[in-house]
Amino acid sequence: MLERIRIVLIGTSHPGNIGGVARAMHNMGLADLALVAPRCEVITQDSISRASGADHLLHRSLSHPTLEAAVNDCTLVVGASARSRTLPWPMISPRELGQRLPEECRDPQARIALVFGREDSGLTNAELQRCHAHVHIPTNADFSSLNLAAAVQVLAYECRMTWLEQLENAPQPQKADDPVAQALATHAELEHFFAHLERTLIAIEFHDPAQPRQLMARLRRLYLRARPERMELNILRGILSATEKTAKSAEMPPSEHP
Amino acid sequence: MLERIRIVLIGTSHPGNIGGVARAMHNMGLADLALVAPRCEVITQDSISRASGADHLLHRSLSHPTLEAAVNDCTLVVGASARSRTLPWPMISPRELGQRLPEECRDPQARIALVFGREDSGLTNAELQRCHAHVHIPTNADFSSLNLAAAVQVLAYECRMTWLEQLENAPQPQKADDPVAQALATHAELEHFFAHLERTLIAIEFHDPAQPRQLMARLRRLYLRARPERMELNILRGILSATEKTAKSAEMPPSEHP
Repeated sequence: MLERIRIVLIGTSHPGNIGGVARAMHNMGLADLALVAPRCEVITQDSISRASGADHLLHRSLSHPTLEAAVNDCTLVVGASARSRTLPWPMISPRELGQRLPEECRDPQARIALVFGREDSGLTNAELQRCHAHVHIPTNADFSSLNLAAAVQVLAYECRMTWLEQLENAPQPQKADDPVAQALATHAELEHFFAHLERTLIAIEFHDPAQPRQLMARLRRLYLRARPERMELNILRGILSATEKTAKSAEMPPSEHP
Repeated sequence: MLERIRIVLIGTSHPGNIGGVARAMHNMGLADLALVAPRCEVITQDSISRASGADHLLHRSLSHPTLEAAVNDCTLVVGASARSRTLPWPMISPRELGQRLPEECRDPQARIALVFGREDSGLTNAELQRCHAHVHIPTNADFSSLNLAAAVQVLAYECRMTWLEQLENAPQPQKADDPVAQALATHAELEHFFAHLERTLIAIEFHDPAQPRQLMARLRRLYLRARPERMELNILRGILSATEKTAKSAEMPPSEHP
């Protein structure tokens, strides 16, 4: 279970924090570190010193230009968020995150990304809207900004606690008829669907990208909440293709009309 | 409850770690920091930088020559221990520590000390034997040495979680920003949506009621799983109406085409 959890750090500024994250991860048995557009060097004296023996995680970490590239193969993407945003998103506690893992990991293809934002400004709204859910570490209202490694420490600790509880329990048989046990769509598949959805809404003149009015954000929230399976996404994309075809046929000049 | 928890650091060597501990404490709502025979200066550029706004805890911290002096008034003393010692001691997990707090804090005079040892060698046997219990943070067997601030972070987090649960046990008004607390669509609204969806899928020739192939069942399962709000259903119905309009325009005989 722990080997399928990826820690994704976006736009980190301080090598020491990356090292601290590596140490917290290795302490809790996590190994998959991904960096998105880091704003500092990854391998420095400071990061290696703070990693304190976990610097193999730094050397093995992958850097990506975008969040999408870092989480493309993930079936659950959870963003760490300090505050609730204008558009409320499914919000879970670190403990709930841990408790959800066994169910999420039933599919052997499942991959989970925990996404952490910049030291100074966290995650952008666009980044948060790519997540299935947000996790909020309950902090002092007057002093809510956790150190990056501390935030990773808390979530990794909850993941480990669940993993240890599972080890103590007997192995569970897979429920065949459980919908969540079906193959979930990956992040990349979901993003292709959202792009297709937006194109189609423009084609039927329902959506004007010049006046977006949070339309796509609201639709993202709805569909991400449903955790679509791959097969369901195929149906939805089929509907979009049929809609596009209809829209094209409506646009045709009369002479070309069948 | 939180104001009665004291974090005691024995023989700390690095000012940065003391700063990191102050930040973790303040984040979780703890304020009482005691130092026993620190092996470094407490107020330095490094400790203030790592405290990141929580340096008032450093300035208010008390230094003591011995553990006894630091915990004299405490009714429960718990030592953080990485490993079990030759003489087995009552051992609790961080979660159990948190769960014990309400009971421990019943007496208004109760004071609780969480004691952390040196970065390099932890607590001595003599120090451990002054504790009522030991708390062990479950770590990777191959890499068990947690950073001092990370260890404080985990225990302080568990204390805060218990404190928050206690607050929640008092009756609460409904959270306005909870997405699930928004007006959910009623059964009737959902059924109108499904009927509208089916009509539209027929209009764009995606769905043939003579050969249904479980299409509507699959779509029902997807949307019902998402628990749509009324507002979201309105958006979806708007999309269906725009699609129907497009389909009508595609059907028009050429002469009536605009």
